[in-house]
Amino acid sequence: MQEFIIEPLATDLDDAIAQKIDLKTKPQGALGRLEKVASQICRIQQTLEPQLKLPSFFVCAADHGVVAEGVSPYPQDVTWQMVYNFLSGGAAINVFARQHGIALKVVDCGVKHDFAPHSDLIAMKIDYGTKNMATDPAMSVEQCKQALGNGAKLVDGVHASGSNVIGLGEMGIGNTTAASALLCKLAEVDPAKATGAGTGLSLDGILHKQQVIARALDTHLHLTSPIEILAALGGFEIITMAGAILQAAHHRMVVLIDGFIATSALLAAHALHPDVLDYCISCHQSNENAHRLMLEILGVEPLMKLDMRLGEGTGAAVAYPLILSAVNFVNEMSSFEGAGVSQQ
Amino acid sequence: MQEFIIEPLATDLDDAIAQKIDLKTKPQGALGRLEKVASQICRIQQTLEPQLKLPSFFVCAADHGVVAEGVSPYPQDVTWQMVYNFLSGGAAINVFARQHGIALKVVDCGVKHDFAPHSDLIAMKIDYGTKNMATDPAMSVEQCKQALGNGAKLVDGVHASGSNVIGLGEMGIGNTTAASALLCKLAEVDPAKATGAGTGLSLDGILHKQQVIARALDTHLHLTSPIEILAALGGFEIITMAGAILQAAHHRMVVLIDGFIATSALLAAHALHPDVLDYCISCHQSNENAHRLMLEILGVEPLMKLDMRLGEGTGAAVAYPLILSAVNFVNEMSSFEGAGVSQQ
Repeated sequence: MQEFIIEPLATDLDDAIAQKIDLKTKPQGALGRLEKVASQICRIQQTLEPQLKLPSFFVCAADHGVVAEGVSPYPQDVTWQMVYNFLSGGAAINVFARQHGIALKVVDCGVKHDFAPHSDLIAMKIDYGTKNMATDPAMSVEQCKQALGNGAKLVDGVHASGSNVIGLGEMGIGNTTAASALLCKLAEVDPAKATGAGTGLSLDGILHKQQVIARALDTHLHLTSPIEILAALGGFEIITMAGAILQAAHHRMVVLIDGFIATSALLAAHALHPDVLDYCISCHQSNENAHRLMLEILGVEPLMKLDMRLGEGTGAAVAYPLILSAVNFVNEMSSFEGAGVSQQ
Repeated sequence: MQEFIIEPLATDLDDAIAQKIDLKTKPQGALGRLEKVASQICRIQQTLEPQLKLPSFFVCAADHGVVAEGVSPYPQDVTWQMVYNFLSGGAAINVFARQHGIALKVVDCGVKHDFAPHSDLIAMKIDYGTKNMATDPAMSVEQCKQALGNGAKLVDGVHASGSNVIGLGEMGIGNTTAASALLCKLAEVDPAKATGAGTGLSLDGILHKQQVIARALDTHLHLTSPIEILAALGGFEIITMAGAILQAAHHRMVVLIDGFIATSALLAAHALHPDVLDYCISCHQSNENAHRLMLEILGVEPLMKLDMRLGEGTGAAVAYPLILSAVNFVNEMSSFEGAGVSQQ
């Protein structure tokens, strides 16, 4: 299994970072959340002159055996159809990535479809979708380790090219069920509190999804080790994302966390290495039920809440310019003394 | 007095706009607030192919006689000192405007200082600061009309150059007192609910500021006409911004509304022409007490809440890429049919 070595953030520069931010020409704290983001990035990079280089996003796609239980209003084919949409540049994440100069790759983590090679598609298919978690482990522990390793490889590649900030998005019909199940099992949350409408279930549909999740939890009741839980209830894209998050933290990169599914990947990563949180910025609180709960459990405050619930990394992508604003004000704003402005 | 002719938005295209957004490859409503912004801009521009052209921000600066009452922890000189900081490019708004390709001009609406000419400074000084509203009208009705006309001129200029989106920011030590007083008088709000810490008052300072506002309200108790109220309690920068907002709406431009002070300018504009709201997007809910209340009174939902409380137009500037994302997804995302993706 991939070894993830993650160091908690050093605190040596904390005073200098706080002082640099406080001496900018503004009342103390007046840039609010941007100051916190700036301070976190300075700590991650251990510098007073933070930089974001070559932002790289991966849209991780996979299918889910649990859709056999009727947990999504969309047909499973939408997963591979959307992969083609990503590759032809017509999805929401393509639009936002283009807008912000974000390099975007699509990863086949385990879609039930054979794709022709494409320059923007990374082939890391573990299987043609997971098994139905309601009756079987979604994947084997070996497959789960393989997915974590795949995520690490993705990040190693862009890190070697000089990128220091990544974002993870996903596509996978049925994956809100996996995300909710992981939340229930890893954080001991009742399915009634962890289950939402996903791509657009009716109230009856949500109740049915809760029952499916409750059955899955029952099926895997005996499991206690994190890796076995991730295998039983995860998805290939979710675990690949978890591996990417862990490896990005290992490389001291900034990790932009998208919505409900991406946060379930962070929850999975956190179950293996709690220090991973230091490197992550929660960009957007999804309109999906239970995302708020997931963030609260992780002790993480999202940057924005725009009522989005699309996944694909869109919440992280639209937040990217705000993250850049945080870095820019640290580097570019004058200090009171430098600008000849009186202090309070 | 400048005539502001503002037409309420036509509804002819509403169905076509909604359909175009709903047929994009995403669950309906999954882009949340971005869909609402997109829809509003389509309605403002009466098109299915919205565009944002030459975004133009004005930082309107002025001084306030009410600082004689000790309502700010900062010395009044900070107003003109910050004007120089804007002109040398070192303030937060400069950083964010550069990041987003926003043209930025600084407007001397009534600063207590003589500035040398500068290519980025627009000279529209009405007086060397307002009078102390606690004892006198802040300005005469004639001066108030002049400020409205100045704001209109600012917008006419950029509109003639092809800009179709503006943002208003401000600088003026003491201007949260004017904004709170306008809120109290125009919306019949108690000073205790309308007064906040501004640039950083202590609790005692806030209580004192409330008393000053209560005295000002008492001094101008008899006033009922909007223009007299704006003159008595406004500031030169606030009323200039109100004029700019009104004229932008007249030209069917998109108006990005910043925080507490900019929203007080919108409140003033709204008191003259309620239809102005159709053209405005509230970008950021400030951490200043009472901004939330002001937005509720106007019936406007802010796009973000980043705990910022700086003014200068910073909340609108950092939101600009989100507004652009809204426009971009309408123009660039594929439809279900176009991308060959199955619908629900």
